[in-house]
Amino acid sequence: MKACAAVLTEFNRPLDLREIAAPVLGAGQLLVEILAAGVCGSDVHMWRGKDPRTPLPIILGHEGVGRVVDVRGPRCDVYGAPVSPGDRIIWERGVACGRCYACAVLHQPSLCENRWAYGIHRSLHDEPHLNGCYASHIILDARTDLVPLLPDDDPSLLVAASCSGATAAHTFDLVETRVGDTVVVFDLSKGRGADLVIEASGSISAAEEGLDLVRRGGALALVGFGTPVGAMSLLPFEQVVQRNVQFQGVWVSDLRHLLRAMSVLRAYANDLSGLVTRRCSLAQATEALEAVESRRALKVVLVPSGSDD
Amino acid sequence: MKACAAVLTEFNRPLDLREIAAPVLGAGQLLVEILAAGVCGSDVHMWRGKDPRTPLPIILGHEGVGRVVDVRGPRCDVYGAPVSPGDRIIWERGVACGRCYACAVLHQPSLCENRWAYGIHRSLHDEPHLNGCYASHIILDARTDLVPLLPDDDPSLLVAASCSGATAAHTFDLVETRVGDTVVVFDLSKGRGADLVIEASGSISAAEEGLDLVRRGGALALVGFGTPVGAMSLLPFEQVVQRNVQFQGVWVSDLRHLLRAMSVLRAYANDLSGLVTRRCSLAQATEALEAVESRRALKVVLVPSGSDD
Amino acid sequence: MKACAAVLTEFNRPLDLREIAAPVLGAGQLLVEILAAGVCGSDVHMWRGKDPRTPLPIILGHEGVGRVVDVRGPRCDVYGAPVSPGDRIIWERGVACGRCYACAVLHQPSLCENRWAYGIHRSLHDEPHLNGCYASHIILDARTDLVPLLPDDDPSLLVAASCSGATAAHTFDLVETRVGDTVVVFDLSKGRGADLVIEASGSISAAEEGLDLVRRGGALALVGFGTPVGAMSLLPFEQVVQRNVQFQGVWVSDLRHLLRAMSVLRAYANDLSGLVTRRCSLAQATEALEAVESRRALKVVLVPSGSDD
Amino acid sequence: MKACAAVLTEFNRPLDLREIAAPVLGAGQLLVEILAAGVCGSDVHMWRGKDPRTPLPIILGHEGVGRVVDVRGPRCDVYGAPVSPGDRIIWERGVACGRCYACAVLHQPSLCENRWAYGIHRSLHDEPHLNGCYASHIILDARTDLVPLLPDDDPSLLVAASCSGATAAHTFDLVETRVGDTVVVFDLSKGRGADLVIEASGSISAAEEGLDLVRRGGALALVGFGTPVGAMSLLPFEQVVQRNVQFQGVWVSDLRHLLRAMSVLRAYANDLSGLVTRRCSLAQATEALEAVESRRALKVVLVPSGSDD
Repeated sequence: MKACAAVLTEFNRPLDLREIAAPVLGAGQLLVEILAAGVCGSDVHMWRGKDPRTPLPIILGHEGVGRVVDVRGPRCDVYGAPVSPGDRIIWERGVACGRCYACAVLHQPSLCENRWAYGIHRSLHDEPHLNGCYASHIILDARTDLVPLLPDDDPSLLVAASCSGATAAHTFDLVETRVGDTVVVFDLSKGRGADLVIEASGSISAAEEGLDLVRRGGALALVGFGTPVGAMSLLPFEQVVQRNVQFQGVWVSDLRHLLRAMSVLRAYANDLSGLVTRRCSLAQATEALEAVESRRALKVVLVPSGSDD
Repeated sequence: MKACAAVLTEFNRPLDLREIAAPVLGAGQLLVEILAAGVCGSDVHMWRGKDPRTPLPIILGHEGVGRVVDVRGPRCDVYGAPVSPGDRIIWERGVACGRCYACAVLHQPSLCENRWAYGIHRSLHDEPHLNGCYASHIILDARTDLVPLLPDDDPSLLVAASCSGATAAHTFDLVETRVGDTVVVFDLSKGRGADLVIEASGSISAAEEGLDLVRRGGALALVGFGTPVGAMSLLPFEQVVQRNVQFQGVWVSDLRHLLRAMSVLRAYANDLSGLVTRRCSLAQATEALEAVESRRALKVVLVPSGSDD
Repeated sequence: MKACAAVLTEFNRPLDLREIAAPVLGAGQLLVEILAAGVCGSDVHMWRGKDPRTPLPIILGHEGVGRVVDVRGPRCDVYGAPVSPGDRIIWERGVACGRCYACAVLHQPSLCENRWAYGIHRSLHDEPHLNGCYASHIILDARTDLVPLLPDDDPSLLVAASCSGATAAHTFDLVETRVGDTVVVFDLSKGRGADLVIEASGSISAAEEGLDLVRRGGALALVGFGTPVGAMSLLPFEQVVQRNVQFQGVWVSDLRHLLRAMSVLRAYANDLSGLVTRRCSLAQATEALEAVESRRALKVVLVPSGSDD
Repeated sequence: MKACAAVLTEFNRPLDLREIAAPVLGAGQLLVEILAAGVCGSDVHMWRGKDPRTPLPIILGHEGVGRVVDVRGPRCDVYGAPVSPGDRIIWERGVACGRCYACAVLHQPSLCENRWAYGIHRSLHDEPHLNGCYASHIILDARTDLVPLLPDDDPSLLVAASCSGATAAHTFDLVETRVGDTVVVFDLSKGRGADLVIEASGSISAAEEGLDLVRRGGALALVGFGTPVGAMSLLPFEQVVQRNVQFQGVWVSDLRHLLRAMSVLRAYANDLSGLVTRRCSLAQATEALEAVESRRALKVVLVPSGSDD
């Protein structure tokens, strides 16, 4: 079978549309047709050469929803049900080892030192080659966690759960919040400051400003930083100690966060129908990256087959 | 009745030993003979003029253990038992309003915006004048929380629960720890870094170093900062986000922390018998401050009556 | 000034509509016109003589929203702003002592052994007599926590935050939940059982059934029990230990829960506009109790003035 | 190679000492010489036929410490270091699948529906036959988590971390405790009741009594129940709701708990040197079970080789 992929071969240059022969599946692997691939801000960083992890050439894309084409051997989803050709699925983008200290003792696979993610760590040369979502097809590893879609799920909307949604959900594992807390909504906070400020832009000035917006005893979560940005300065006594503030880094996410993000997207599917402001073909992948970089679009999704149904 | 106090009248000058007439007690107030007064690092900061809150002239000393001499009206301890002359007690050094947002909603009286502490916020001119522990007697407010001592309690040891011990205990409300966690013990951490680093020296370089000693997913608690120390610099991506670190300010403490610190000091009383390395009279208060400043002593305690029994 | 109240003088008999002279306000007290009084299931228990706490004669009603008519001395709301005649307010229905072990150490004023609540613990004979919300006016104690209403707030809707809403919010302090958790929604739980089952009916059979609906590692919160109901039976090994279940009692609430419940009611005000299915005058108070008892109505509110604006 | 094992072939009968040929190791398996095998209360239940899971014939023993004799292929311990013949190790007694909802989403492998434990779930007929610790040797599966011993570790003491210690440590994941909390120590609790009562005997009357000993807002953890014991009765209003009590089942444990239990045993090794009151040979295994059953011994350990060094 021939797959088609948008390949990053040189930083800052247009992605290259290529035909790639799909290899024979190994034990436990799945061949999946991509129904929707999210374009994430960190894809832009990789394209621009700002992420030191990027191995070239690479098929970008760590956010994906797809339809199973083939499975080698029995595979079950996270609920224990068998997965078969024709099933629509989403998957945990990161694959953790399950045996290291972070996985087996801390129960935080997002901190696994052997963790790798589709579209980020494996180049086009690494087997089984189809390792990213900017493609007509992807091959999922035997250790990838699979989650079934419901009949009403919209792949283009749900794909946002994969990385950005799940990372946001991770925040709530690290920062205690309660129903009714003020989350960066200052006009309602009666001058108290926010219970929780989520820094999601990846800019140092926003982090510095956010620290002042937190109430005494509240928290600032740094969620938006995906690549090095240099140093920031803070006043440990005045801004952190005397105000009893929690300053919390949030690093990627794991399957539990993906499921939570899916729950939220499903519950508010109607309200969020305008979230995806642009759908592109694979040939338009470079334009999609530019649209995200220039913030002209809210959420951009690649639809390789021309339809995400 | 005449009380005797070591009064700070001018920064950086020796404390002045004065006789002060004890006023008639107001409703709910207690007159307490000081059995032991702890000399805290922040007393040194106040003496040196580095704490902008310091009102002159002032009787320093926020850590105290004493014996009740007189009570105006019925008063109960935190367990609901009446308090009478002759009883040995320790008390929560901070007095919170109980009605503001921090007190009544957050349940964090340590963040009360109306909070004041003995030996810190009220000058010798403020009624009832005997507002600090560097004295033969102190007058406790009707809103001060009282805790009874047990017959075996050593006032000079237990006084450490009042501020330093309670603030350390507060850390464990803010940073989740588990039995067996590694707390700044690196040789045993097998290169993983510490689960929790407690910065207790109040120095910026120690805070910066501490951040690198925390394991991924661990926490750095800033406990030692009591006065402004300028800015520190950190790398939000490399040190905080990518390592999923919690950077937590810890500000003073409340009654629950005092009780926890007392439990620990009681449980390890034998092991800690060497903690108090110096006992001084009131006339030696200035020397006591110098000993703490120069770190020549571990814990210094004033014993106004010459005996802490 | 003359107030009007529906008084319970004898169990199981119609409430008695009486005129009561409002006394002169004591220091810190407020006279408040009731705009809306919620009819709670536990009011029905008190009316039926099933709650051993009930002192007769009594003005029932612990859920209230009102407009300040008079204040004796300066009073502030929980945000520190002064409260004046004309202000619309809601208040914490329970008054805790602030000094006992539960208040000052555990920071759980809902467990205060000296706690009392309007409409429950104080009879018509106890000063200042106007101690319940089934009346044209109530007198609030100097120690009652006050919360201002926003201009758009609907008193009849918001009154549900006072007891039922706040007690539900209390559950989330005691049982850890996460965004996306399944809360008694079984069709979506894929056979795993619910993450959290909230027993809100106060019936033993529902509690027993609920225990089986919880997933392994999940929680059953008992929220609905307000009066003794006898014994229930459970299998400690099969239902609790082997399934690692948390079985959690939830007792009343405090100010923090009131604020959280208000936030939720405000956020979903449009969706909840049909929640109040019946508004009654004071003269209809007995009918209101009957409607709640027979479950003919969802939420019943008394509107003493004929209008809750 | 020939191993020797004490085999349970018929309930309530003496264990049968047999010679068993060790099979060739499969990929990732380890052959381990048992240095110490703990005799757990649930071994007695299995011997007496009270545990419905017991497959006959079986080598009992889920608590073990040993020395590696052979490894098939590269294996690492939980810190990432390679494991070689001669190394002394302890291991997580339960093997979880890592992929089900409990493992991958809840991060609670102790609730894994595919979990099995050495000495409990696999009979002597199941490959690789040496599946329990009452033997000279055990074969550990490729998915078993391995933890290295330190040079000073005493196998007979540390073996207690494997099941009883780890299950106790699990309690502290499920019930929030703080430094200084009163854990079933009533004389110090000033009539408040205990913050936490741990029911560790597996008797219903103790659970019922324990519920009354918990303070308001405290917790009762059921840790001791390993097999069905029938029903218990409680008053949901008086004992649970009105007292705001958490009633928490604790089911087995995972690797994180094993490590915590090891930390505690190491920290208090001197104080706990008298914990192991009896060491038996394999031939004395039946006597060891009787000693545990009759509570004549505190902790009984089998030492197959005659020495645990």
